[in-house]
Amino acid sequence: MTESSALVSILMGSDSDLDVMMEAGRTLEKFGIGYEIDVTSAHRSPERTRKIVAEAPARGVRVFIIGAGAAAHLAGVVSAESTLPVIGVPLDSSALRGVDALYATVQMPAGIPVATMAIGKAGATNAAIFAVEILALSDEGLRQKLQEHKRKLAEGVEQKSQSLRERLNK
Amino acid sequence: MTESSALVSILMGSDSDLDVMMEAGRTLEKFGIGYEIDVTSAHRSPERTRKIVAEAPARGVRVFIIGAGAAAHLAGVVSAESTLPVIGVPLDSSALRGVDALYATVQMPAGIPVATMAIGKAGATNAAIFAVEILALSDEGLRQKLQEHKRKLAEGVEQKSQSLRERLNK
Amino acid sequence: MTESSALVSILMGSDSDLDVMMEAGRTLEKFGIGYEIDVTSAHRSPERTRKIVAEAPARGVRVFIIGAGAAAHLAGVVSAESTLPVIGVPLDSSALRGVDALYATVQMPAGIPVATMAIGKAGATNAAIFAVEILALSDEGLRQKLQEHKRKLAEGVEQKSQSLRERLNK
Amino acid sequence: MTESSALVSILMGSDSDLDVMMEAGRTLEKFGIGYEIDVTSAHRSPERTRKIVAEAPARGVRVFIIGAGAAAHLAGVVSAESTLPVIGVPLDSSALRGVDALYATVQMPAGIPVATMAIGKAGATNAAIFAVEILALSDEGLRQKLQEHKRKLAEGVEQKSQSLRERLNK
Amino acid sequence: MTESSALVSILMGSDSDLDVMMEAGRTLEKFGIGYEIDVTSAHRSPERTRKIVAEAPARGVRVFIIGAGAAAHLAGVVSAESTLPVIGVPLDSSALRGVDALYATVQMPAGIPVATMAIGKAGATNAAIFAVEILALSDEGLRQKLQEHKRKLAEGVEQKSQSLRERLNK
Amino acid sequence: MTESSALVSILMGSDSDLDVMMEAGRTLEKFGIGYEIDVTSAHRSPERTRKIVAEAPARGVRVFIIGAGAAAHLAGVVSAESTLPVIGVPLDSSALRGVDALYATVQMPAGIPVATMAIGKAGATNAAIFAVEILALSDEGLRQKLQEHKRKLAEGVEQKSQSLRERLNK
Amino acid sequence: MTESSALVSILMGSDSDLDVMMEAGRTLEKFGIGYEIDVTSAHRSPERTRKIVAEAPARGVRVFIIGAGAAAHLAGVVSAESTLPVIGVPLDSSALRGVDALYATVQMPAGIPVATMAIGKAGATNAAIFAVEILALSDEGLRQKLQEHKRKLAEGVEQKSQSLRERLNK
Amino acid sequence: MTESSALVSILMGSDSDLDVMMEAGRTLEKFGIGYEIDVTSAHRSPERTRKIVAEAPARGVRVFIIGAGAAAHLAGVVSAESTLPVIGVPLDSSALRGVDALYATVQMPAGIPVATMAIGKAGATNAAIFAVEILALSDEGLRQKLQEHKRKLAEGVEQKSQSLRERLNK
Repeated sequence: MTESSALVSILMGSDSDLDVMMEAGRTLEKFGIGYEIDVTSAHRSPERTRKIVAEAPARGVRVFIIGAGAAAHLAGVVSAESTLPVIGVPLDSSALRGVDALYATVQMPAGIPVATMAIGKAGATNAAIFAVEILALSDEGLRQKLQEHKRKLAEGVEQKSQSLRERLNK
Repeated sequence: MTESSALVSILMGSDSDLDVMMEAGRTLEKFGIGYEIDVTSAHRSPERTRKIVAEAPARGVRVFIIGAGAAAHLAGVVSAESTLPVIGVPLDSSALRGVDALYATVQMPAGIPVATMAIGKAGATNAAIFAVEILALSDEGLRQKLQEHKRKLAEGVEQKSQSLRERLNK
Repeated sequence: MTESSALVSILMGSDSDLDVMMEAGRTLEKFGIGYEIDVTSAHRSPERTRKIVAEAPARGVRVFIIGAGAAAHLAGVVSAESTLPVIGVPLDSSALRGVDALYATVQMPAGIPVATMAIGKAGATNAAIFAVEILALSDEGLRQKLQEHKRKLAEGVEQKSQSLRERLNK
Repeated sequence: MTESSALVSILMGSDSDLDVMMEAGRTLEKFGIGYEIDVTSAHRSPERTRKIVAEAPARGVRVFIIGAGAAAHLAGVVSAESTLPVIGVPLDSSALRGVDALYATVQMPAGIPVATMAIGKAGATNAAIFAVEILALSDEGLRQKLQEHKRKLAEGVEQKSQSLRERLNK
Repeated sequence: MTESSALVSILMGSDSDLDVMMEAGRTLEKFGIGYEIDVTSAHRSPERTRKIVAEAPARGVRVFIIGAGAAAHLAGVVSAESTLPVIGVPLDSSALRGVDALYATVQMPAGIPVATMAIGKAGATNAAIFAVEILALSDEGLRQKLQEHKRKLAEGVEQKSQSLRERLNK
Repeated sequence: MTESSALVSILMGSDSDLDVMMEAGRTLEKFGIGYEIDVTSAHRSPERTRKIVAEAPARGVRVFIIGAGAAAHLAGVVSAESTLPVIGVPLDSSALRGVDALYATVQMPAGIPVATMAIGKAGATNAAIFAVEILALSDEGLRQKLQEHKRKLAEGVEQKSQSLRERLNK
Repeated sequence: MTESSALVSILMGSDSDLDVMMEAGRTLEKFGIGYEIDVTSAHRSPERTRKIVAEAPARGVRVFIIGAGAAAHLAGVVSAESTLPVIGVPLDSSALRGVDALYATVQMPAGIPVATMAIGKAGATNAAIFAVEILALSDEGLRQKLQEHKRKLAEGVEQKSQSLRERLNK
Repeated sequence: MTESSALVSILMGSDSDLDVMMEAGRTLEKFGIGYEIDVTSAHRSPERTRKIVAEAPARGVRVFIIGAGAAAHLAGVVSAESTLPVIGVPLDSSALRGVDALYATVQMPAGIPVATMAIGKAGATNAAIFAVEILALSDEGLRQKLQEHKRKLAEGVEQKSQSLRERLNK
C-alpha cells in the first residue's frame, strides 16, 4: 500500500475501519500529499506493526495517522516505537460508541503523546488536515493551500447560507 | 524482583501503582504462591516489556497480573505477546477515576483476551484469587485452600454481623 | 445441553443472549474443547442456577463462561458458589447499551473474582480463548493450538492488508 | 441484630456501610417501626443471606432495605429469593462513585423488582420513609405520622427561609 | 380512565409512553389488580396532576406507578403531593437514552422517596410486580399468586433451557 | 427575604446551597439590580413554592434564578407555574457531582423551558449576568453596564497576563 | 435570511441542523415573532459569524438562538461577542449523541452566559418559547399569548387523556 | 511573556491553569525550545486572543499549545484563526472533572483540527513533547534529543524496577 513518495502513513486496526479512514486519504489527496494506507493490529500482529513503524522513516514517512476502535491501543503502540508525530482517530466500533476508543487513545501517560482527533469521520478528515499543517511548517506551498482551504470552508458556509435562504424563500 | 519459584508475574505501568498492586502480592502469599513483581511500561519501555513477557514461561510464570491506569495498554500488550492467561487491573490514576483504564483494559478485540477485574484494590486482590483459581485446576491442595478461603469469607461476614450486634446493643 | 466431555460451561441469563454467546461455543469448537451451554437466571431461577454450579465439577466442568445483560448478576452469583474460574461477558441488552452489565460484572468486591471480557460478541469470543489459555496450562497440545491461533491472527492481518492493497490499486 | 417486633430488615453488604445505612434505622425509629439490621453478603456469604431472607417472614419482616456498593448484587439476590418488597440503596464505595451500584441495583430484569433509591444517605433515609409508606397502607396511625412528617418537612423549609432572612439582614 | 376498583394509578407524562407503560397494566391484569391509566404532565398540566393525586385515595388508589422520560419530574411531583408509595419508571425518550430520566427519577432528596425501576419495559413490568408485592402484604391471595408467579419464572427458564437443547441438537 | 424593588427572585432547594447561590446575588448587586433570595423546595414545600411563584409578578419579579442539586426539579416546577423566564443552576450536591442536576434541569420537555447554566458557582454567576442581559433589553443603562462589564472582563485578562509576566520574569 | 422585523436571530453551525432548528422558527411564528435564520460556523467562518453578531442589534435582533453539535462552540462565541441574551441548543450530531454538545454549550466560564436548552428538537422548541418569555417582559400582548399557550398545553394533556380513554375502552 | 525566539506559544484560558500548563513550559525547556506563555480567553478577551494568534507567525511561533477547562473553546477558536498546528490540553477545572473540557476540545468539526492530549498534567507534558516531535521534522538535533528522551524514559523504568526490587528485598 506504499506510494514511493508517502509522507503520511495511515494505519488502522481492522479493514472494517477503511471506510472511515479513507476520509483521511481523500483529504491528503486534495493537498497533493502522498500517503500509504495499511491494516495492522497492535494486538493481532504486533511484530508486523513494529516493522512498519521502524521502517517508516526510511520509506519517507513523516507523520502517522492511526485509526482504531474499542480498547484502541494501536496509536499508543506506534507512539511508543517512534519519535515521529502520531495522530490518533478513535473509531465508533463497539457498544460504547467510541467513548472507549477515545479514552484509550487520548489518556496517554506523560512521555508518549498521541494527538487525538474527534471520533469517526470528522476525526479522520481532521487528522489529515493536521498532518498537512505539520508538513506545511517546512513547505510554503502547502501553507498557501491550507489558507486556501480555510477560505473555501468560509465560502462553503456562505453558499450554504445562500441556498438556505433560497429554500426558505420558495 | 524474581523469585525462583514465581508462578505469577505481577507487572505494573508505574511504581506509583505499587501500593495497590501489592494487594495482589499479599493475597498470593496467603495461598503460598510464588510471584515476581516488577515495573514496566507498554509505552516507555516496550522492548523491556516484551523481553519480560517472552522469557516468562522459562522463568516458570504461568499467569500474568497487570495493573495500569489511564490509557491502560500494558495488559493488552502483554496479551498480544503471550498465550498465557493475562489478568488486567484498571487503576484509578487520572481525572477520569479509572473509567479510562477500565475501558482500555476490558474492551479488547476478538482474539486477544484480557481478564479484567474491578478498578483499584478490590481488583488487585481478585486478580490474585483468580490466578489461584486457575492454578488450582491442576493443584488439589490449592483447591482446598480456595474452599477454605471461601469459608473464611463467610465466617468474616458472621463475625462482622456479631460485632455489629454488640456495638448496637451497647 | 451437556456433552459428556464438557470442560467449559457456558451459561446465559436469557435465551435472547444465545446468538452472542454461541460465539464462545464456536470458538471452543475450533480448539476441540467440549462445552455445555444452558440458560439459567440468577434472579428467575436461583435454585436451578446453584444446582448447575454445584454439580458442575462432577460433570467435569473446569471453567465457567457467563453472559448476562442489564444488572448482570449471573457471573457474580456463580463465582459466589464456586471456586472454579468464572469468566463474565457483559451483554448489550438494555437502553444503557451494556455499560450497566459491564459495571455489574466487573466491579466485584474483594474475594469473589469475575474475569470480565468486552461487551458483546468480541467478549464472548475472548471468553472462549481465555478459557483455552487456562486449560492449556496443563495441556501442551492446546498450548500449541493457541500459538497456531496467534499465528493465524497475524496472518489474517497480512491477508487483509493484501486485499486492501488490491482493492485500492484497482 | 433482631428485635422481636422487626417489621423491616435492613441488610448491607459490608460493615463499612453501617454509617450510611443507620440513616434508614434512625428514620424508622422516628416512626416507631421496629427493625433488624445486619451485615450479609451476596457473594461472601450467599447461604447465610438466603437463610436470613427465607426466615424473615417468620420473624415478622414485611419489607427489606438493602444497601450495597460496587457491583451491588445483594438487593437483586434478596428479591430473587423473596416475594416481599425489596428496597435497594446504591452506595458510593468505589472509584465509580456509586454509578456502578446504581446500575447494578436498578437495571433488574423483568420479573424481579428492586425499588431503587438515591445513592448514599439520602437514599437510605428515603428507603425508610418508603417502607413506612408501604406499612402505612394497613396502619392508619402510620399514615397520620407520614402526613405529620410531610408537614414538618414543609415547616423545616419555612424555618430555613426564616433563618436565612435573619442571617442576611444582619 | 378510572376503573371503579382501581388500586393502582398508572400515570405517564406523554401518550407516546403508552406502549411501554401498558406493560405495567398488562402485568397488573395478570394478578387481577384493578388499575387506572392516564396521561398527565408535571410541567404542562401541573394543576390537573395535583388534582389526580389529591383525589386518588378517595378513588381507592393505594399505589402510584409513574412513567416519564427526559428531565422526568412527574414521579417526584406526585411523591411531593402524596404519602402513598410512588414507583417511578424512567423512560428512554431522548438523545440521552434514559440516563437523564433515571437520574431525575432516582436521585430524590431525603424526605420524598420515589421507588425507581429499570429504564423502559422491564421497569414498567417490575413496577407492577412491585405494586403487587406491596398490596400482597395485606392480601394472602395475592401473596400466593406472587409465589406462583415466581415458580412460573423458574419454569420458564427451564422451558427455555429445554427448547435451547432441542434447537442445538437438531 | 424580599426587597421592595426585587426584579429577580433567587430560589434554592436547600439552605446548604446558599454559598453557591449568593454568587448570583453578589453579581446582581454589582449591576444594581434588586433581588429576593429564599429557600423553598419542589418536594418538601410544593405549596409554598407555588405561592412564591404565583405572587412573584405582583412583587415585581421579572426573572427567576433557581438553584437545585440531585434530581433537581425546582426550576422545572417554577417554569411549569410561570410564564416569566426561569434560569436554572444545577448544583453539585450528590455522589454524581452535578451531572444528575444538570440532566434534570436541562432536559425539559417541549413547552416548558428552563435556561440552564453551568454546574455550581460559574453557573450562579452567569445566571445573574443572563438575568441582567434580559433586563437590559428595556433598560439602556443596564446595557451600558453590561458593555462595561465585558470590557472589564477583557481588562482582567490583560492584568492577569501582566502579573503572569512579572511572576515569570522574577 | 433576514426579515425586516426579525427580533430573534436563529443561527446554526451546519445546514444539516436545519430540520431541528426550524422547530424554533415554527414556534416563533406561532407567537408572531419575526426571526432571521442562518448558517454560520464558529470554526469555519469566524469572521462572518462576528459580523452577523456585531450587526444584529442594528437589524433589530434582541435575542440569539444558537444550535450546534459536537464541540459546539458557536453559542459561546456569540455570547463572547454580544451582550444580548444567547440561548444555546445542543444538537445530537456525533457518536456521543449530543452529550459533547451539551457540555460544550452549558459549561461556560463565569462572565459569559449561554442559556442552554435540551438536546435536539425539544430544546429548539423551548429556545423559541424562552425567547418569547424574554420579549414578553416588555410586551403585554406576548405575555397573554404565553398564558394562552400554557393553557393549551394543559388542554392538550386533557385531550390526550380523553383519546387514551377512548382507545382503551374500545 | 514573549521570548525573542519563541517557537511555541502556550496559551491558557485562566491564570489558575498556570500550574498545570507550566509542565509544558518546563518540558520545552528541557529540549531547548523557546516558548511564550500567556493568559487569554476565548470568551472574556476574544479580540486579544485573535490578535495574539494573528501576530504569532510574525513572532516566529510555529506551534500552539492551548490549555482550557470546562466548555473549553480556546483551542478551537485558535484553530479557527490559524493554519499553524494547535495542540489542546483539556483541564480538570469543573465539577465534571475535565470530561467537559475533553469533549469540547476533541470533538471538533471536520476542517478545523485540534490535536487533543490527556486531561491535566500528563496532557500538558505530552503537548510539549508532541510540539518537539513536530519541530524535529526539520531539525535533526531535536530528533536526536527525542531519541535520547525515549531512551531515558526506558532507563527510568529500569531504575524504578531496580529501586522497587531493593525496597521489597529489605
